[in-house]
Amino acid sequence: MYKLVLLRHGESEWNQANLFTGWTDVDLSEKGVQEAKEAGKRLKENGIQFRYAFTSYLKRAVKTLFLTLNEMDRLWIPVEKSWRLNEKHYGMLQGMNKVKATETYGKDQVLLWRRSWDVAPEPIPTDDPRHPSHDPRYTEAGSTPGTEALKDTAERIMPYWESRILPTLKAEKEVLVAAHGNSLRAIVKLLKGMSNEEIISFNIPTAIPYVFEFDADMRLSKDYFLADPEELKQLMEKVANQGKAK
Amino acid sequence: MYKLVLLRHGESEWNQANLFTGWTDVDLSEKGVQEAKEAGKRLKENGIQFRYAFTSYLKRAVKTLFLTLNEMDRLWIPVEKSWRLNEKHYGMLQGMNKVKATETYGKDQVLLWRRSWDVAPEPIPTDDPRHPSHDPRYTEAGSTPGTEALKDTAERIMPYWESRILPTLKAEKEVLVAAHGNSLRAIVKLLKGMSNEEIISFNIPTAIPYVFEFDADMRLSKDYFLADPEELKQLMEKVANQGKAK
Repeated sequence: MYKLVLLRHGESEWNQANLFTGWTDVDLSEKGVQEAKEAGKRLKENGIQFRYAFTSYLKRAVKTLFLTLNEMDRLWIPVEKSWRLNEKHYGMLQGMNKVKATETYGKDQVLLWRRSWDVAPEPIPTDDPRHPSHDPRYTEAGSTPGTEALKDTAERIMPYWESRILPTLKAEKEVLVAAHGNSLRAIVKLLKGMSNEEIISFNIPTAIPYVFEFDADMRLSKDYFLADPEELKQLMEKVANQGKAK
Repeated sequence: MYKLVLLRHGESEWNQANLFTGWTDVDLSEKGVQEAKEAGKRLKENGIQFRYAFTSYLKRAVKTLFLTLNEMDRLWIPVEKSWRLNEKHYGMLQGMNKVKATETYGKDQVLLWRRSWDVAPEPIPTDDPRHPSHDPRYTEAGSTPGTEALKDTAERIMPYWESRILPTLKAEKEVLVAAHGNSLRAIVKLLKGMSNEEIISFNIPTAIPYVFEFDADMRLSKDYFLADPEELKQLMEKVANQGKAK
């Protein structure tokens, strides 16, 4: 039997300020630090013993992973980072308040940018210093998008899933992926066979381990969050309500 | 030009208690956490931009590396861990107070165990739960010693130096190795061409970056600690005096 655990990073400073973040490399908030530690405790209590972990190039995911593994006393396992696990690139929305964006562009347009399968926000121009081509970490071919639809995010994750995550899961049996709301959505869509419409309305709460169990033939046998149902419902509703004007 | 930086972990809970640690996986002390952050600040101020880092399987080194890279805003670089960079295994001395050991076995014997090239402390028996063969992280062939002389530590590091650290330094130009007093001694001995006697009396202070610069032909051009000379002298004397009876 194999276990893959997906973990969305703890609350970041910009989650807290309700800004679109995307590839902006913001830090965890103090609450996010506590959430990450709590995730480690939940995983440890459930007897999960990771042999390998993956994360993105963004510090809110790298730190969440570190804090989680520290609680589990497994800082010694290999950790592999890839830009392919980064959050969806939010183009020109990055840095904009979510409520402000709703007021400016209208609820429907923002929902389309946030949650459609194939509509991307306006791109950041290549000569804008915020464009990933100016950041030394993005050297690999294809790693410098100016914006992304969820479809683009999913498409750049798939080669990494096939070439690195899936073979590692087969070899190491218990594997952790610490990443972001939308990069994890792409993986959930694949694992659960969700339609483009279904994945749009599926919300992943921060720092609640999402466990996928597979049988010996790598068929998904069950999936569940390490949280009680009432707690989970509240957390998912909170994520869904982030874009709503107050 | 190439830059290799060696960084000994910050003070651990057992450094503080003056116990032999070796492969015991003790945490950083609060002072050690501060030292690691300070190391990151020193490296950042000196404009060093690592593209790759190596560390051991022991959390005091993994955490020192994390805290250092966090200060440098380079948590996104690849980090590779290996048991080969672990501290020298101290056998049955692990967990024993250094002053107590001196009083029990005599100054000369303890100095021989601590600082000789080829005399190892009494080994931990394989059926002792503290023996590395009972720890899930040590699965690789040769990774379960019951004790080590500095010579043994150097011999298990050399294949890793040749196959991983040196090629990575050539490819990535600026590389960090966060490890331990004796595993770093083995690397210093190699780089500086020190004799077995010279390396024994060479003391590496905790969390002071030790920079090695190489020319285009990978010949060592200079090496220096990122500390002022008076500060460095005091730190080295402190390390040298740890085994002395008070």
